[in-house]
Amino acid sequence: MNAPGQPAKQGARSLDPHLRRYAARTAGMTASEIRALFAVASRPEVVSLAGGMPHLAALPMDSLAAEIGDLVATEGLVALQYGSAHGVPELREQICDIMALEGIRAHPDDVVVTVGSQMALDMVTRIFCDPGDVVLAEGPSYVGALGSFAAYQAQVVHVAMDADGLVPQALREALAAVERTGKRVKFLYTIPNFHNPAGVTLAVSRRAEVLEICARHGVLVVEDNPYGLLGFDGQIYPALRASDPDNVVYLGSFSKTFAAGLRVGWALAPHAVREKLVLAAESATLCPPTLNQMVVSRYLATQDWKGQIKTYREAYRDRRDAMISALEQHMPDGVTWTKPDGGFYVWLTVPEGIDTKAMLPRAVTQRVAYASGTGFYADGLGSRQMRLSYCYPTPERIREGVRRLAHVLEDEMQLHLTFGPTSGRAVSGPQGPSPDTA
Amino acid sequence: MNAPGQPAKQGARSLDPHLRRYAARTAGMTASEIRALFAVASRPEVVSLAGGMPHLAALPMDSLAAEIGDLVATEGLVALQYGSAHGVPELREQICDIMALEGIRAHPDDVVVTVGSQMALDMVTRIFCDPGDVVLAEGPSYVGALGSFAAYQAQVVHVAMDADGLVPQALREALAAVERTGKRVKFLYTIPNFHNPAGVTLAVSRRAEVLEICARHGVLVVEDNPYGLLGFDGQIYPALRASDPDNVVYLGSFSKTFAAGLRVGWALAPHAVREKLVLAAESATLCPPTLNQMVVSRYLATQDWKGQIKTYREAYRDRRDAMISALEQHMPDGVTWTKPDGGFYVWLTVPEGIDTKAMLPRAVTQRVAYASGTGFYADGLGSRQMRLSYCYPTPERIREGVRRLAHVLEDEMQLHLTFGPTSGRAVSGPQGPSPDTA
Repeated sequence: MNAPGQPAKQGARSLDPHLRRYAARTAGMTASEIRALFAVASRPEVVSLAGGMPHLAALPMDSLAAEIGDLVATEGLVALQYGSAHGVPELREQICDIMALEGIRAHPDDVVVTVGSQMALDMVTRIFCDPGDVVLAEGPSYVGALGSFAAYQAQVVHVAMDADGLVPQALREALAAVERTGKRVKFLYTIPNFHNPAGVTLAVSRRAEVLEICARHGVLVVEDNPYGLLGFDGQIYPALRASDPDNVVYLGSFSKTFAAGLRVGWALAPHAVREKLVLAAESATLCPPTLNQMVVSRYLATQDWKGQIKTYREAYRDRRDAMISALEQHMPDGVTWTKPDGGFYVWLTVPEGIDTKAMLPRAVTQRVAYASGTGFYADGLGSRQMRLSYCYPTPERIREGVRRLAHVLEDEMQLHLTFGPTSGRAVSGPQGPSPDTA
Repeated sequence: MNAPGQPAKQGARSLDPHLRRYAARTAGMTASEIRALFAVASRPEVVSLAGGMPHLAALPMDSLAAEIGDLVATEGLVALQYGSAHGVPELREQICDIMALEGIRAHPDDVVVTVGSQMALDMVTRIFCDPGDVVLAEGPSYVGALGSFAAYQAQVVHVAMDADGLVPQALREALAAVERTGKRVKFLYTIPNFHNPAGVTLAVSRRAEVLEICARHGVLVVEDNPYGLLGFDGQIYPALRASDPDNVVYLGSFSKTFAAGLRVGWALAPHAVREKLVLAAESATLCPPTLNQMVVSRYLATQDWKGQIKTYREAYRDRRDAMISALEQHMPDGVTWTKPDGGFYVWLTVPEGIDTKAMLPRAVTQRVAYASGTGFYADGLGSRQMRLSYCYPTPERIREGVRRLAHVLEDEMQLHLTFGPTSGRAVSGPQGPSPDTA
């Protein structure tokens, strides 16, 4: 498994007769660690703390089924027909109402509906990044974003976070360092609220400073906010976009607040950028699925969507509580973790000498899975970290998963004390399975 | 309006403060002529022969609504959840059954489900084309394909067609010409059946020759086949992929045989290429919408989809007949057109001196719209051509539209005889509106 941006193993590709035909960008396309875990996560005996699947059992499925059936019966000729690459107008208006909760004032014309916010991210990268351009991103950052950046051969420079999110001084230093190399920073990619994977939130007191630094350096801000309405105390932080409409592209999603399998997300962009996004989206998919946009629009119009978000929030809070209390109860000394007040994820750090990627096969043998930290860095870091998700398993399963993981870690730490590191802390290059899993 | 690959007008972009930040590829992103016509086409008084919207009124909407409602009620937890970037396994099996009708033997593992075949095309271009690489395509070619090629800065070289489709000798000459320049041809993009926009079909007797030429030159074939099952006599031509599994990527779609608004298409690729496609798709949208894939899968499993294709075919045949007979009845001497035996489109050529792009505003004033030919070429040709679609309007509206169009052309030809060309036959560069529309 290789982090995005690292070359794929040559051995695996030498059988491919098309090898000489691929574009240069294709060399950087390697399977994400999370994708490789999907197969494992689906085995019922494994507690998967790896994926980011929302808790759909909280949805009123019968009522949704009736609405969707009625939608097709009454508006099928529109719902099943091509639409515009810009998106369904009614939905773009409703999206503006949702963003108003975070202090954003926007015109529906400046919203572009996309196939999940992943596509919005891909389109933003498509219109801004030439090969070799630099994107700044928190370290760690969302694995799917790193995949898009790699697909356009952008170079990722990570910026440090602490418990209050992105560190402004680290941002200043990263910008200065890149500027010294003569490369161009195209944008700062940031997840300000309930960060994936770090579980932290950018302090409100830092927000103006981050915006001011980016504006001063002529760097666009791409604000990715899929979890913003999932604060466990009902708190909603002001969007970066609310303070700086001209220099922020805001990405939103219905995947976590409604249903991921519909793949409906959006970008809100300054007007001129929005035009480019629509053209890029047209070349990518012609238009997002009309049916899905109308399903979301009708859901927002006919169902208690704010009540549903509250239901989700409470379920995730219970699961966060289960995970944090189990971590406190079971984890050996030397293991630390973040304590999110919203979103899906805890970011855990293990003692020096333990490599979470090397340990993963042993954890799966003990019927627990996680996402090892290296997938969330473009530069090979993260080998002492892992992301634990509490969004999908029940609280009982979460506690059992953490208990199993603690045992795996204890064994690993014991082995390390006895024999030294079981695998090196190499920052790059392939690593074979260790002897006890072969 | 600019053809793909030409620079946008600077005047229109100078107000954009982000101008200096865009990637080089973004300069080539300009609104397609067909998109600009969508707004016009929606006005009820205009007969639009411009769009490619399928005739959804032929679908059994009540039955579909019941199936989709039942799907959400019984399988909502899967249908509304994330899936894999590869696609739903059951649907990939069914897709193999459909392709078997064209003589294709394929394994479901080698099928990648995409957000319409447009996304498949975009992913193929993503993994193969570096900036400056050459793609061969019929002249004219599908406007959406030209948009994707432009987004990856590929250079399109057109290959001539005649009434029997792509001309093998023209393909040989195009390959030789590109090879002399030292550029790399990455693939031949071809629509062998019921071509969009040309309305012709690659003669079966030419198919082995086209494959052999590409194989000899080490050039991949990308076979785009959205209309293959819509032959008006029920004829099905053997797919190129059926004869050369290792050197053809086949693209298919449910947009024309079922419902465009679901955005479900696919690529069938050689195994190693398929792996790259899945990774590329993951970076583009994470996964295609699960709901839409399951809707198509259930439709194929529970409804008479072959009967539905027959219904579509007969409706389109009636409309083709209406268009061809109206053309024969009304068009002035010197106008010629293709006679498709399947698909959606007629390609019409007007006498020298008439510019279809310059004429379009006048046609719209006379309440008829078409797609002018220049949008289907990357090199500025096509000013004497237009695409007429018969897929969406009723036969009666088609006849009325052709009648109106014939009058517009007659007036234009009369003006030309009296005053000379109303606008130059420039092969590139912006053209302002002519005096009588200002």
